[in-house]
Amino acid sequence: MANNPLAHLTRRYEFSASHRLHSNQLSEDENWEVYGKCNNPYGHGHNYYLEVTVAGRVDSATGMVVNLVDLDRVVKEEVLDYFDHKNLNLDLECFRDLVPTSENLLLEIADRLEKRWDRETAAGSSRLVKAKLQETGKNFFEYRYP
Amino acid sequence: MANNPLAHLTRRYEFSASHRLHSNQLSEDENWEVYGKCNNPYGHGHNYYLEVTVAGRVDSATGMVVNLVDLDRVVKEEVLDYFDHKNLNLDLECFRDLVPTSENLLLEIADRLEKRWDRETAAGSSRLVKAKLQETGKNFFEYRYP
Amino acid sequence: MANNPLAHLTRRYEFSASHRLHSNQLSEDENWEVYGKCNNPYGHGHNYYLEVTVAGRVDSATGMVVNLVDLDRVVKEEVLDYFDHKNLNLDLECFRDLVPTSENLLLEIADRLEKRWDRETAAGSSRLVKAKLQETGKNFFEYRYP
Amino acid sequence: MANNPLAHLTRRYEFSASHRLHSNQLSEDENWEVYGKCNNPYGHGHNYYLEVTVAGRVDSATGMVVNLVDLDRVVKEEVLDYFDHKNLNLDLECFRDLVPTSENLLLEIADRLEKRWDRETAAGSSRLVKAKLQETGKNFFEYRYP
Amino acid sequence: MANNPLAHLTRRYEFSASHRLHSNQLSEDENWEVYGKCNNPYGHGHNYYLEVTVAGRVDSATGMVVNLVDLDRVVKEEVLDYFDHKNLNLDLECFRDLVPTSENLLLEIADRLEKRWDRETAAGSSRLVKAKLQETGKNFFEYRYP
Amino acid sequence: MANNPLAHLTRRYEFSASHRLHSNQLSEDENWEVYGKCNNPYGHGHNYYLEVTVAGRVDSATGMVVNLVDLDRVVKEEVLDYFDHKNLNLDLECFRDLVPTSENLLLEIADRLEKRWDRETAAGSSRLVKAKLQETGKNFFEYRYP
Repeated sequence: MANNPLAHLTRRYEFSASHRLHSNQLSEDENWEVYGKCNNPYGHGHNYYLEVTVAGRVDSATGMVVNLVDLDRVVKEEVLDYFDHKNLNLDLECFRDLVPTSENLLLEIADRLEKRWDRETAAGSSRLVKAKLQETGKNFFEYRYP
Repeated sequence: MANNPLAHLTRRYEFSASHRLHSNQLSEDENWEVYGKCNNPYGHGHNYYLEVTVAGRVDSATGMVVNLVDLDRVVKEEVLDYFDHKNLNLDLECFRDLVPTSENLLLEIADRLEKRWDRETAAGSSRLVKAKLQETGKNFFEYRYP
Repeated sequence: MANNPLAHLTRRYEFSASHRLHSNQLSEDENWEVYGKCNNPYGHGHNYYLEVTVAGRVDSATGMVVNLVDLDRVVKEEVLDYFDHKNLNLDLECFRDLVPTSENLLLEIADRLEKRWDRETAAGSSRLVKAKLQETGKNFFEYRYP
Repeated sequence: MANNPLAHLTRRYEFSASHRLHSNQLSEDENWEVYGKCNNPYGHGHNYYLEVTVAGRVDSATGMVVNLVDLDRVVKEEVLDYFDHKNLNLDLECFRDLVPTSENLLLEIADRLEKRWDRETAAGSSRLVKAKLQETGKNFFEYRYP
Repeated sequence: MANNPLAHLTRRYEFSASHRLHSNQLSEDENWEVYGKCNNPYGHGHNYYLEVTVAGRVDSATGMVVNLVDLDRVVKEEVLDYFDHKNLNLDLECFRDLVPTSENLLLEIADRLEKRWDRETAAGSSRLVKAKLQETGKNFFEYRYP
Repeated sequence: MANNPLAHLTRRYEFSASHRLHSNQLSEDENWEVYGKCNNPYGHGHNYYLEVTVAGRVDSATGMVVNLVDLDRVVKEEVLDYFDHKNLNLDLECFRDLVPTSENLLLEIADRLEKRWDRETAAGSSRLVKAKLQETGKNFFEYRYP
């Protein structure tokens, strides 16, 4: 094994939110055809599980890639405080013109984390690798940072 | 072991819904104090997992307490069709004057199942024993039929 | 809390088996109607999870209700060695005239454990309370010892 | 369904601790025979999952049996602050003369919760029903309050 | 984040089947040595979990990579209808001369999905990335499309 | 699909250990600041889950990438026998001067597996791809072999 090898750490978070799937670019009939009961006017909701993966060299003094306390603080401020216990359509600016599908929700989360991580001193030499969003026990979505 | 012993079967279902916790019997301040961010005006949501437990003698011809196809039909018609992909506060008559906490949602579900089971010929000699509702990975609620 | 209170311990086991649901007491058409694709002539299979619950006073010297090593030995000899990696219909005497539904499989397991536990010196003053058999992630079955 | 029926709520918590299984009432040889590698002098550890179950009538104003915020506070103060990230043998008074098996750890937890719940005003009319301690993915232990 | 980034979606499916591990290229003794109790003549079975991963650009009108309704239809027709509740050795042409290990079962599934996806109009610009087959809670197998 | 494609297999293992996070390169105050309650002098513990991933061509005679019996033997001898039911700080040579964080524990495991795999005849043409170590339900760590 090489000296000072790379390790990946992943941390799991949970939040709850509601949404309605409805696209302004589609007719009422098309919306129903594409989204089915997810198009219900008053919305429905999910418990979302988010996994954030960070990669870096293991610090020889601390034995860590990044301190989980720091990662928790970033995810709380950028993701949980913003999305938890919200109606994605009505409470959030970012979904004013964007359908809050899990794909779009994931990309919003990944973007918020990326902008913060670049200026986060606690990030050290680590970098964001992946964000994974689980919508139900049967579906999950991943964004892999380039 | 006695002849023809009793066995319990439990089946797991999933549905998604949104809700806002807000009581008409409390002031705005009291609502916030009791429900915290669950009082957010536009609501939030969950994936709910429901487990229904039925007990009965094992039929000597079929080897079953009750056919799962029959149980699935009852739960679909009484619970899933009614609650899945709904806003509990705005879509449903039963929560017009009742706060849609998990406790109240569970009791509504248990009541709907009980009324149907009594007149369901496929139930045979089996009886409802328990309904269990999981709100998140950390919380669940049970009603035990008397 | 009373002196020397009762505690319950539960241990989880896994085995794999195949079966075909077919009743000699039903016609071909009735078999298909009752069991659907589970009536496929060549059978199908499952990973079964078994949970065995034992209750007893906590031994003041060892701090245990029963030693898990002893419980494991009993379950291995009475259940796993007998049912694991078997075709329930073709390999096992007990299902010659009995449909190997999960209900009947559970009752066979509960019966074998009960007969052994009564003469097992390592059982001490503990007693069998429950056997629970999980067939898939959505179904499980319980037998509660009287 | 009766008016104002009883509902059970269960909440899941997690903590990590280390222990060594060794009884002062047994010889060195007996300790090794009873506990095997759990008798390793320097100890080992577990992630413990605790589930606390409370039963009560659903409050007509709030729709709750008990507020989870209150339950969380009690469990934090009585259990998590006391046992989390501890060496059960060396850090805790209660295991000075008691083997820290999962059975004994569960009974200590159940006792601490019971003493507190009786004088906890937020408990309202609810009562403790069950404490369940999971030691690994294969073992769990339950105490049922009388 | 780049405009119109790539996202991965994964969907989980379940089916049950039985099999016997036996190779025509090995002697009886070699079969027993290689497969152990999985070589039992009458077979055994599993609940298999399949996860299919698809990658693509998020459609700006629908907010989706691919509609899950379309993915479900493809997997149902190509995998579930073919393998669910079957005896892999006796019911299926593809395992006439091929040992139905999880590796070979996975490759059959991956191949069937690939042939269909290429001519599936609902696939849009998305492509198959991975197929993952879980045999038990302890084993899983992956094929990564090139 | 290409002839004789590559498949990945992953197998899950479990062990229990205790540790104290304390770095000789940091002052007492710095240790407390970096590790918090994980710096408790007497330590705490975890159930660790290890997933080992191996990739290779599927053998045409056996239908396997590698026999799980062989993989189990290697992981038992190199990892489980060495780390299970141990105090990582006090029992193990490798953590004399290295903080036993999950990152460092993972790298030790990955290194031990790599050295053995290279000289393991049962490995055939397969190679180690990934080692993944789960510390709690919320954290996991991965090493990807180059």
